[in-house]
Amino acid sequence: MDRNMAEIKNLSHFDQTGRAVMVDVSAKRESQRTARAQAVVRMQPTVIAALPDNPKGDPLEVARIAGILAAKRTADLIPMCHPLPLTHVDVQVTVLADRIRIEATAATLAPTGVEMEALTAASLAALTVYDMTKALDPGATITDICLLEKTGGQSGHYQRSAP
Amino acid sequence: MDRNMAEIKNLSHFDQTGRAVMVDVSAKRESQRTARAQAVVRMQPTVIAALPDNPKGDPLEVARIAGILAAKRTADLIPMCHPLPLTHVDVQVTVLADRIRIEATAATLAPTGVEMEALTAASLAALTVYDMTKALDPGATITDICLLEKTGGQSGHYQRSAP
Amino acid sequence: MDRNMAEIKNLSHFDQTGRAVMVDVSAKRESQRTARAQAVVRMQPTVIAALPDNPKGDPLEVARIAGILAAKRTADLIPMCHPLPLTHVDVQVTVLADRIRIEATAATLAPTGVEMEALTAASLAALTVYDMTKALDPGATITDICLLEKTGGQSGHYQRSAP
Amino acid sequence: MDRNMAEIKNLSHFDQTGRAVMVDVSAKRESQRTARAQAVVRMQPTVIAALPDNPKGDPLEVARIAGILAAKRTADLIPMCHPLPLTHVDVQVTVLADRIRIEATAATLAPTGVEMEALTAASLAALTVYDMTKALDPGATITDICLLEKTGGQSGHYQRSAP
Amino acid sequence: MDRNMAEIKNLSHFDQTGRAVMVDVSAKRESQRTARAQAVVRMQPTVIAALPDNPKGDPLEVARIAGILAAKRTADLIPMCHPLPLTHVDVQVTVLADRIRIEATAATLAPTGVEMEALTAASLAALTVYDMTKALDPGATITDICLLEKTGGQSGHYQRSAP
Amino acid sequence: MDRNMAEIKNLSHFDQTGRAVMVDVSAKRESQRTARAQAVVRMQPTVIAALPDNPKGDPLEVARIAGILAAKRTADLIPMCHPLPLTHVDVQVTVLADRIRIEATAATLAPTGVEMEALTAASLAALTVYDMTKALDPGATITDICLLEKTGGQSGHYQRSAP
Repeated sequence: MDRNMAEIKNLSHFDQTGRAVMVDVSAKRESQRTARAQAVVRMQPTVIAALPDNPKGDPLEVARIAGILAAKRTADLIPMCHPLPLTHVDVQVTVLADRIRIEATAATLAPTGVEMEALTAASLAALTVYDMTKALDPGATITDICLLEKTGGQSGHYQRSAP
Repeated sequence: MDRNMAEIKNLSHFDQTGRAVMVDVSAKRESQRTARAQAVVRMQPTVIAALPDNPKGDPLEVARIAGILAAKRTADLIPMCHPLPLTHVDVQVTVLADRIRIEATAATLAPTGVEMEALTAASLAALTVYDMTKALDPGATITDICLLEKTGGQSGHYQRSAP
Repeated sequence: MDRNMAEIKNLSHFDQTGRAVMVDVSAKRESQRTARAQAVVRMQPTVIAALPDNPKGDPLEVARIAGILAAKRTADLIPMCHPLPLTHVDVQVTVLADRIRIEATAATLAPTGVEMEALTAASLAALTVYDMTKALDPGATITDICLLEKTGGQSGHYQRSAP
Repeated sequence: MDRNMAEIKNLSHFDQTGRAVMVDVSAKRESQRTARAQAVVRMQPTVIAALPDNPKGDPLEVARIAGILAAKRTADLIPMCHPLPLTHVDVQVTVLADRIRIEATAATLAPTGVEMEALTAASLAALTVYDMTKALDPGATITDICLLEKTGGQSGHYQRSAP
Repeated sequence: MDRNMAEIKNLSHFDQTGRAVMVDVSAKRESQRTARAQAVVRMQPTVIAALPDNPKGDPLEVARIAGILAAKRTADLIPMCHPLPLTHVDVQVTVLADRIRIEATAATLAPTGVEMEALTAASLAALTVYDMTKALDPGATITDICLLEKTGGQSGHYQRSAP
Repeated sequence: MDRNMAEIKNLSHFDQTGRAVMVDVSAKRESQRTARAQAVVRMQPTVIAALPDNPKGDPLEVARIAGILAAKRTADLIPMCHPLPLTHVDVQVTVLADRIRIEATAATLAPTGVEMEALTAASLAALTVYDMTKALDPGATITDICLLEKTGGQSGHYQRSAP
């Protein structure tokens, strides 16, 4: 995207005096929208290895549920987000050798997108993973929080290119 | 930290059946505690360059305030966190050539630490930066969310080693 | 309902791995929906008798208002509930000889039902009654929280059969 | 408790005009306090039987986490409750032949008790169980929500007598 | 408006027994609605004069953001308000010689109006201004909180007459 | 207060770059603190006259309860406020010929004051009164929101001088 285009679009998120604003979506039609985002918690393999030792249940279920609840709080947390009637939220937590990967999806029928809801879900799930493991590894790092894909709306389909 | 130590400490965050639990801090004394955490939003230099063009004020002030408010909602968002009487929260936003760096601090007088409050503040400030700039660069990535330092409590001073 | 039917329907609330999920209602049409639920607080007749002695006003008004506010927080409290644009909530509190009966109704125009909103309203109103009377009767019990009726949606009219 | 005693105590929860009030605990000393409460969800044995069929994990983990989070929001939900610095919350979910039983405990160091926090945790966990199973059995009933035990404070130990 | 008309309209906000109720808007059509409200914080000119001395940025930005966030919490705060899908909120803060004036606008596509959202935004922005300046002037007063204009809905356009 | 004093005190609420900050109260001792604030809703006498016509109960009870709940959410609403363990909140609503007057009190044992809690309670009670009567008199005005008195803390007793 070139700079001129960027500045034009910029006007929707900042006013002429440079203040951050909520975009006015009163005149936009509602449409089906989805977004998919991820977050990664990198931690010591020994900590990861300890997790599945638990005899029963999935100790990371708490992270999944925290992510789903957080998606529903997005407009409370991010000042310029619009409250959206979410029709679906899902969070998947995958345990790998040296990291836990979270993928969140959100869907709505609304005049604006659900990127922030998916990103908020992934981020809070990641923070919850950190909270559960910080006694073992306070040096764990949350990284690679990004939008993977979005559908719906005027700007159309967005798919993150492979790294 | 060796594995045996890890498993012992692990017991405080998961019960014997592997369920995530809230640590019981009823018998712990309250003490002065602080934590310092960071988050980084990496984005295209052209988007960063566009930000200070705004004629008046700091367009990232909204991120700083979102971070401070988020710190106060940590126990609402992260299931096993205790509600803490925060005595201070601060968020600093620094604009660099290809990224915006957020540093958050939190303080309390309580029987448990404020790491999650500092991390939640940094994370929500970063998500708010993304929200303000996503129209220009949906590919921006939030990364390097980590605890930099903490003081107080039984486990004492923690300082993240330089990368 | 036989077991096979149960297992089919079950799939919408739990995924194949047994994890609780939020039902995806993106493809469902919105329709007018209502729900009616109740809760009962059983307590000593002497405590009940003391309540109307108050010279002015209705001491249980606080329970009614707590119930209405709680209905609006349902999606914040129950992890897999969708946020709904409630068009009406009402709570009625009736004082009987040995119990206080609460009946709550909720209405929406949405792709999913408002049972949980009505039940949450009734439950929180009942908890508030308990809170107001617990100094007199800590042994009071909240009981008979159930859905009385619901209208709208694919599954149609539900009416609880008389006990 | 006789009527005179009831009326004296009543004064702390209602003012002279009969309005519900928040008790003033400014002059009370803080002390260690705990409370234990329960809730029961009665449902068809076939629905209960379907639950443990899930191949992995505990489908009721979502109820446990909802209960813990709800305890921390008690003062937001019940108008005359004081905000308390909870030092512990736990929720246990037990599956029986024809009902799911929830037991919640809460602890604090505060000038007033945590009964409402334990009861709110149990109630919201029960509502979440209902939400997860209502498609199978809309006639399920939440019942027997009561305080089982409390410790600490001026009024001392309370233990519910066996039914 | 004459008294008879007043009493008829009154029925929508109070039931026959005088209890405040949430108006049932289930049968009303959604339409575009806007509202504009103001609040004024009167304080000593010396305090006002000190504000713009700050070398960088707008110290009142925090008030503007608090107002926008508060608009989204209106239904959580005002018991009989319906949750509305806000499509826009804006808050403007103007510094005058002896007062700070806040003007808030809100917009929605809904079956009921957004007056309370605009008024809540203006009020919380004003309270935040007071919070930032109270150390200098605890005697500052918030005044003239009123609806300036509203559009949409059955009752049509309302414009406050000049004072 | 002269200008120099103002600027010195100012430093606690704004940093050197003019950004609004949360005051760091980590080093302050907790003490008993109270605050008393008011708000006034001015409206047409005919509207006021209609209110007590209601056959049963106090239609303004909803405003009183909204105010008490709002006090407990002050730190969620006002960005730089500290979360405080409130020990008491009360709201009184008085109906006069041409206005409804609200007086709110708050108390805590904390290292910082409860002015904002009392002011938030009074303001939200006033907004709730407006919400209940706006169909009859959209021109009603909320005015005279101010701190009447505060006790405790380093700055000592504050009593608003008579108007």
